[in-house]
Amino acid sequence: MFIKMILHAWDLNVKRTTKAFNGFSDEELFIEIAPGKNRVIYLLGHLVAVHDMMLPLLGLGERNYPQLDEAFINSPDREVADLPTVQELRIYWNDINMILEGYFKNLTPDGWLARHTAVSEEDFAKEPHRNRLSIVISRTNHLSYHLGQIILVKR
Amino acid sequence: MFIKMILHAWDLNVKRTTKAFNGFSDEELFIEIAPGKNRVIYLLGHLVAVHDMMLPLLGLGERNYPQLDEAFINSPDREVADLPTVQELRIYWNDINMILEGYFKNLTPDGWLARHTAVSEEDFAKEPHRNRLSIVISRTNHLSYHLGQIILVKR
Repeated sequence: MFIKMILHAWDLNVKRTTKAFNGFSDEELFIEIAPGKNRVIYLLGHLVAVHDMMLPLLGLGERNYPQLDEAFINSPDREVADLPTVQELRIYWNDINMILEGYFKNLTPDGWLARHTAVSEEDFAKEPHRNRLSIVISRTNHLSYHLGQIILVKR
Repeated sequence: MFIKMILHAWDLNVKRTTKAFNGFSDEELFIEIAPGKNRVIYLLGHLVAVHDMMLPLLGLGERNYPQLDEAFINSPDREVADLPTVQELRIYWNDINMILEGYFKNLTPDGWLARHTAVSEEDFAKEPHRNRLSIVISRTNHLSYHLGQIILVKR
């Protein structure tokens, strides 16, 4: 039941964020969330990259879009000129969340309580709360954080 | 352990938000998070009121600051002229989170899995995930959402 509650919060926030992105025209994705701050398109690419990184972090699979890191993780907005198209990013967003959902629904309770790959076996023995589920909790909060920013545009 | 993980995320977000509020001078609290959007002071009052509402919702106690609802829950920013002082709101923020922390650390696992007061006994029998812990998960996400907005000021 704990797992169900945590995954419910993840799903809810993915759905809300998808709804927000879908509410923007391609042109509107280039609006800044506040003067001089990130554009919505940057947050879209950033969230795709962060969710994609969850696959190796959870030990579930390889990255799909490592090419996004340079523009959306390692650099601030507007620094990298060579961005994927809006259409590509919209597809990546839906695909990565579907891929994660597919893995999530097949994980057993023991699987959820297994360590994530950023913690060593020695540390995990002392800190068993550093498991896969803790990653989902922190990434749900990360998503809410940026959703609160995205929502500032068009309201 | 699940409870520990969920409370850890709550604590972390309360601490981050407190740090953000403490980083603002009294004057800076009146800056808007984006042009025409809420001021930081509104989000401070809003978060105090929402956290205060958790006490009756979790069945842990009475409200401390019901007088905040008119300005910070029922009305948008700038509609109610008669606001508490900045000093009062800063104290309320620290106090309500300390009060919640005190209750949280004394709840047993069974206590956490008991129903919250917004769900009827009949519905809870069918939907046992609508427990107290689910409120903490959703309020942590609510907090992250507004933290993402607060952080836009002064960066």
